[in-house]
Amino acid sequence: MFNFKLIKEDKASKARLGEITTNHGKIETPIFMPVGTQATVKAMSSRELEEINAQIILGNTYHLYLRPGDDLIARAGGLHKFMNWQRPILTDSGGFQVFSLAKLREIKEEGVYFRSHLDGSKQFISPEKSMQIQKNLGSDIVMAFDECPPYPASRDYVDKSLQRTLRWAERCQAEMEGIENQALFGIIQGGIYPELRKQSVEEMLKFDFPGYSIGGLSVGEPKEEMYKMLDYTTPLMAKNKPRYLMGVGTPEDLVEGIYHGIDMFDCVMPTRIARHGQIFTAVGRKTIRNAVYAEDFSPLDPECDCHVCQNYSRAYVRHLLKRNEILGVRLTTYHNLYFMLNFAQQIRQALAAGKFIDFRDEFYQNYQLK
Amino acid sequence: MFNFKLIKEDKASKARLGEITTNHGKIETPIFMPVGTQATVKAMSSRELEEINAQIILGNTYHLYLRPGDDLIARAGGLHKFMNWQRPILTDSGGFQVFSLAKLREIKEEGVYFRSHLDGSKQFISPEKSMQIQKNLGSDIVMAFDECPPYPASRDYVDKSLQRTLRWAERCQAEMEGIENQALFGIIQGGIYPELRKQSVEEMLKFDFPGYSIGGLSVGEPKEEMYKMLDYTTPLMAKNKPRYLMGVGTPEDLVEGIYHGIDMFDCVMPTRIARHGQIFTAVGRKTIRNAVYAEDFSPLDPECDCHVCQNYSRAYVRHLLKRNEILGVRLTTYHNLYFMLNFAQQIRQALAAGKFIDFRDEFYQNYQLK
Ligand SMILES: [Zn+2]
Ligand SMILES: [Zn+2]
Repeated sequence: MFNFKLIKEDKASKARLGEITTNHGKIETPIFMPVGTQATVKAMSSRELEEINAQIILGNTYHLYLRPGDDLIARAGGLHKFMNWQRPILTDSGGFQVFSLAKLREIKEEGVYFRSHLDGSKQFISPEKSMQIQKNLGSDIVMAFDECPPYPASRDYVDKSLQRTLRWAERCQAEMEGIENQALFGIIQGGIYPELRKQSVEEMLKFDFPGYSIGGLSVGEPKEEMYKMLDYTTPLMAKNKPRYLMGVGTPEDLVEGIYHGIDMFDCVMPTRIARHGQIFTAVGRKTIRNAVYAEDFSPLDPECDCHVCQNYSRAYVRHLLKRNEILGVRLTTYHNLYFMLNFAQQIRQALAAGKFIDFRDEFYQNYQLK
Repeated sequence: MFNFKLIKEDKASKARLGEITTNHGKIETPIFMPVGTQATVKAMSSRELEEINAQIILGNTYHLYLRPGDDLIARAGGLHKFMNWQRPILTDSGGFQVFSLAKLREIKEEGVYFRSHLDGSKQFISPEKSMQIQKNLGSDIVMAFDECPPYPASRDYVDKSLQRTLRWAERCQAEMEGIENQALFGIIQGGIYPELRKQSVEEMLKFDFPGYSIGGLSVGEPKEEMYKMLDYTTPLMAKNKPRYLMGVGTPEDLVEGIYHGIDMFDCVMPTRIARHGQIFTAVGRKTIRNAVYAEDFSPLDPECDCHVCQNYSRAYVRHLLKRNEILGVRLTTYHNLYFMLNFAQQIRQALAAGKFIDFRDEFYQNYQLK
């Protein structure tokens, strides 16, 4: 089963409050989704993810296909059971990683030939193959296999890639026919060309996918370009379907994406910067490894009520990071993910109270952007 | 406060059941103590340590003195508060690490001059300095600063080192005078020379320390040599004081040490092998990284009831370890420490039931030694 309920639309922006229902539970939107690339959200355990109220996490088709293999995960009973996570999972199509990580990739109409970034072995992923892998993984939300053009790319290139993505979407839908428990999301492409975005939306709508992602953004273009494209694209999309902006998820991106009508976000950034000793706070990012925090016995973020901020000091976390102790990365990761999930929750509360614009204004007043 | 209560002596061996009371809580003996070298038991959080019923952990004076510095920890409110651990802590004297890790060490009557293994800086630790550091750390049990001779060492060398350790013990006791909340343990030396062990015990007894450790064992001598020395030494020691065998703590070492009258153990081995993908099971150690476990969906140890064994498979843990995911090391560490703590608890239960020898026999039947 899969259902999206639009609960409320903001009066002063394109922001929306909603709720997705899947076989593994409900997801309140707007939502931030932690990324669990290799069947683990780096440094976190599944019960810690539950504790910080992660409602859905991501898995990466490309990585899991290569190691440990989707067949093995199927024999383990699916990705939920394999990694001990009983809430919803979204898997990407593998396309983005094939284009960015794999070696010697060759894109053909039938699919993509490439060499594994791990051992150089020859591999092939097609729309059908991506669906078969994601069926083996058993994710609740499955992404269509698309071609994501680089930035910048010519109008002609983007157009051709968009047409191919449409043909591949049809093959993905055919391959998923009869599957009840996995919802296939279509992906809207079109780069930074409004007419192409419009065409992509119109063609994609015909498939009547249960949800849509806006692809081909956050690939190197200026932020203003991305927001402009969102502002243009989301009004064309169906209101009664969730909208997912792939690979985007800083606090400021959440605020702006939601402002422009996005419901779902994912990003490795909160966990990645945590491993480099950077944390989110109510007033902006801080590099807790820095010497200035050596004797700072206050919490990572004095305004945060997470387990880490209630029990550990900046000085202690800094000591752990400097000594390369695993607990250091555990604590910064836990806090950063809590921060993002709590941030999304605060936005939902603001939306419910009809105060999203106030929240947004206050955020920009308090949070120092880089 | 510090108190040791001898609850029961085994009839068929030198094993004892006891209870230590400190300001931070009680410790049932025999006990295994996880090692938290740098103010963290590697890969574990303090609440996980509580969950697996760790009753006391170790801190390393040498490491904490160098980084982040005992002064800083004192300003943080002591080691308990700094690392968010409210149960008892034992700190070593720093001596063993100075002798084994530091560079260019020079042992003089006043103390040890050495260069930090981290940055080569000149350092000096004396008996008084070791006590001052441990006072700053605020541990519940403080170890006297001793000289630990290498193995092998001549009788003359061991004798001289033993006499110095006695003079240093006196200086340690003087430095700790008036300290109520920290119990100073004396260290018995004497290498593998029975007469020297006897002399060490007799002289140490005069200090009336609240507890004693047997030092200079597990430094490279054959196991039989170690057990022979324990068998000889423990009957000479006071019955009403806890006996601690430093740096020793495999399952087989626990069984034998307890058999010979030891109450307290610590060892980095369970956490170190965990980081290398090795786990304890009821039938012996297993290297879970090995290919044979790639599709083994059973728990790490089918007889273990820890959180890891209840929720994760060998195949999943192997996948995480192969991908260098932090969660892999977290799960093997958690299980290994649980195994050791549970093992000590089973021994206490066997002792309480008067069945320690049966437990020991059964252990040797089931557990495959390397
Ligand atoms: Zn926090
Ligand atoms: Zn276990």
